[in-house]
Amino acid sequence: MKPVQDRPSRFEYIHEGAEIYKRSFAIIRAEADLSRFTREEESVAVRMIHACGMVEIAADVVFSDGAALRARRALQEGAPILCDSRMVAQGVTVARLPCANQVICTLGEPSVPGLAAKLGSTRSAAAVELWLERLEGAIVAIGNAPTALFHLLELFDRTPARPACIVGLPVGFVGAAESKDALIDAAPAPFITLRGRKGGSAMAAAALNAMASEVE
Amino acid sequence: MKPVQDRPSRFEYIHEGAEIYKRSFAIIRAEADLSRFTREEESVAVRMIHACGMVEIAADVVFSDGAALRARRALQEGAPILCDSRMVAQGVTVARLPCANQVICTLGEPSVPGLAAKLGSTRSAAAVELWLERLEGAIVAIGNAPTALFHLLELFDRTPARPACIVGLPVGFVGAAESKDALIDAAPAPFITLRGRKGGSAMAAAALNAMASEVE
Repeated sequence: MKPVQDRPSRFEYIHEGAEIYKRSFAIIRAEADLSRFTREEESVAVRMIHACGMVEIAADVVFSDGAALRARRALQEGAPILCDSRMVAQGVTVARLPCANQVICTLGEPSVPGLAAKLGSTRSAAAVELWLERLEGAIVAIGNAPTALFHLLELFDRTPARPACIVGLPVGFVGAAESKDALIDAAPAPFITLRGRKGGSAMAAAALNAMASEVE
Repeated sequence: MKPVQDRPSRFEYIHEGAEIYKRSFAIIRAEADLSRFTREEESVAVRMIHACGMVEIAADVVFSDGAALRARRALQEGAPILCDSRMVAQGVTVARLPCANQVICTLGEPSVPGLAAKLGSTRSAAAVELWLERLEGAIVAIGNAPTALFHLLELFDRTPARPACIVGLPVGFVGAAESKDALIDAAPAPFITLRGRKGGSAMAAAALNAMASEVE
């Protein structure tokens, strides 16, 4: 085997991570219609688009008034991040967090399978039940399970605790669009979402990463 | 605070995980044009669609001949899975793996930052360099970085080792489409990819999960 190669290679491409980000964001801003967003919202929408490769989602992104700014400030004040899946938690760029914020995913806790059976719902919903004591002022990030978002909305009937921001981005064909519509209708706390079937863990993590730091 | 609630709730939705999967896959099969795929390919395409909520990607999925079947057999024979990001690794459903296959992400290894500097590329590309000794017969899953896929293609100029299958699904605006076109052109090993900007960690993990088990 030959040693680690020096360039040039057969392929021409940009190798530097910072340059890739810069050009990606420039392409997104050139192609996407972001005119209706505030400055805070725009930076979140850009990273959500970056995560999925689709500028056309800009039209379906919904921010409640001031949600992006509220989330940024809460993160600066040390709010924990409650994630519905390990993929979301893994996607958070720790170096961008302003306050060494805790990134929490309760899906693996031992009580979750039993609680899911008791609730008659998914493990994702049961994991949300375990957020109760940490919900007040937290940032919630749901990138996977519609049942997690529905369960969160149900939880608000039982507790006065409210997160600083709900990033509600479950993806898929059964319940995803409906759970996000329910979030928009109920608006129990500041929220960021995307109408329709699209969403996902990478997009939820990208929204968090945008709000965690003003550095692009 | 009231105790854990019994249904009914204000929201009507399907609570059972198995039923959600079943209905999701039925919707995908009703809406997507999957007619050109073999049985093996179809199950992979369905899960890729499931991961992103978009039936229209079916048209852009590319399998090299027999790649899906080759990957399934390699997994049954114990092939390790080499992932370009922790999100891909996290998205693999361990319970579906037929042979307690190793799921490996080298991105966090201590040598990666120094190697990235030496290569003049990203940490993702450097992490791929560390796959060399494990590449032969492995399943490769790239769901994040175009530079990882380009670096993998460059690696084949220096080693005769070939993976059993390359799941090449980097996402984004700079290099993603180009790296996947380069994979299709070079075809250094059996591969699965998606033309264009779309892709991602969830989609890469979904393809792996489809090939890991025949259980839907």
